[in-house]
Amino acid sequence: MKVARAVVCLSLWLAVYRVSGFHIPLKMNKTIQNLLQHYNVPPHQMFNGKPVFSKERLPGSLERVFMAGVLETYDNLFSKMLRQLPTPSPQTAGNEDRPASDVNVPQGLAGSGPGGDVRKGLVELLDMIRNLRKYSYQDVEKLLEGLHSLRHIQLDNTVVQSKALWELTRVYTEASTLSEKQMQRKRRRRQARGSKAHQRA
Amino acid sequence: MKVARAVVCLSLWLAVYRVSGFHIPLKMNKTIQNLLQHYNVPPHQMFNGKPVFSKERLPGSLERVFMAGVLETYDNLFSKMLRQLPTPSPQTAGNEDRPASDVNVPQGLAGSGPGGDVRKGLVELLDMIRNLRKYSYQDVEKLLEGLHSLRHIQLDNTVVQSKALWELTRVYTEASTLSEKQMQRKRRRRQARGSKAHQRA
Repeated sequence: MKVARAVVCLSLWLAVYRVSGFHIPLKMNKTIQNLLQHYNVPPHQMFNGKPVFSKERLPGSLERVFMAGVLETYDNLFSKMLRQLPTPSPQTAGNEDRPASDVNVPQGLAGSGPGGDVRKGLVELLDMIRNLRKYSYQDVEKLLEGLHSLRHIQLDNTVVQSKALWELTRVYTEASTLSEKQMQRKRRRRQARGSKAHQRA
Repeated sequence: MKVARAVVCLSLWLAVYRVSGFHIPLKMNKTIQNLLQHYNVPPHQMFNGKPVFSKERLPGSLERVFMAGVLETYDNLFSKMLRQLPTPSPQTAGNEDRPASDVNVPQGLAGSGPGGDVRKGLVELLDMIRNLRKYSYQDVEKLLEGLHSLRHIQLDNTVVQSKALWELTRVYTEASTLSEKQMQRKRRRRQARGSKAHQRA
């Protein structure tokens, strides 16, 4: 039921932004151009052949996991850029000290006065990124949370070390089983491809 | 060819440790027991119902990605535990200042003297973890590297911010396409299951 609702929401949301079969929102392009004009970085620094996000592709489902990481980075980036702007109006004052995840994106945040358009543009982009994460990458978000939590394990704590030793048999068995299942799946796919090619011949 | 060689290596390697169909290496269990005795953490601290590594399962291929993260954490953990041991012999002196990834596991590292068994045990476990990572999780390792690199992006640098803005159209399009492909795959799987159930009825 939850999945069905998410699919309907995403379809409605994409329909608003979809332009002739491609997911390149025209409004997004316009907003990006305006923001680039505002930040005004010289072309030789912008186009030095070193993109922020690698264009290299990963195999199959792994690409989607990396993409979820990239979207999370954009979320943090736009949240940071919003906090770097001068406070626009009393109702949004105090945002500077709040963590990225606390930056809400209601219309009120757009503000007015100098830099109001920049804020509005950043809020719009942040909103789009968060919708995409929420409706299309929710399953991967949980994995990313799990991976982040691994970084906070106290590796120099003796109790943690001993607990991890105790858990190793279970983990090692699961890890071996998972990799064996993966190999079986690959083998079955190769066999299916082989039998299809054989039938055609 | 590379995949075939990896499969052969892994099969040979697993065959050594495999015990009656299960991947629970007896030698590993013995080593873990010895190490637990050495670290000697009281049972009420060991078994407080809070495991280091979550037992919660993730759907499908995501579980394998999380498992790769767990194996990486074990690699870092055992490397740290090895560096925490007193220097056993001249040929391994100086290991304390080296990063976790630099800890090699040749037989020479096992050392002798007090704590030699502990060192030998840790080297053995580290070796097993690294073999599993190398032969069964190599594809996911690249993804983890990519995700780690995202953490080092300088979010407060104006050039990085503008470059990321410039790249957003490409990234957003790819992210939308990937999520749409995923939905199509799920839809096809649902339809296939539905038609199979229909045929049976």
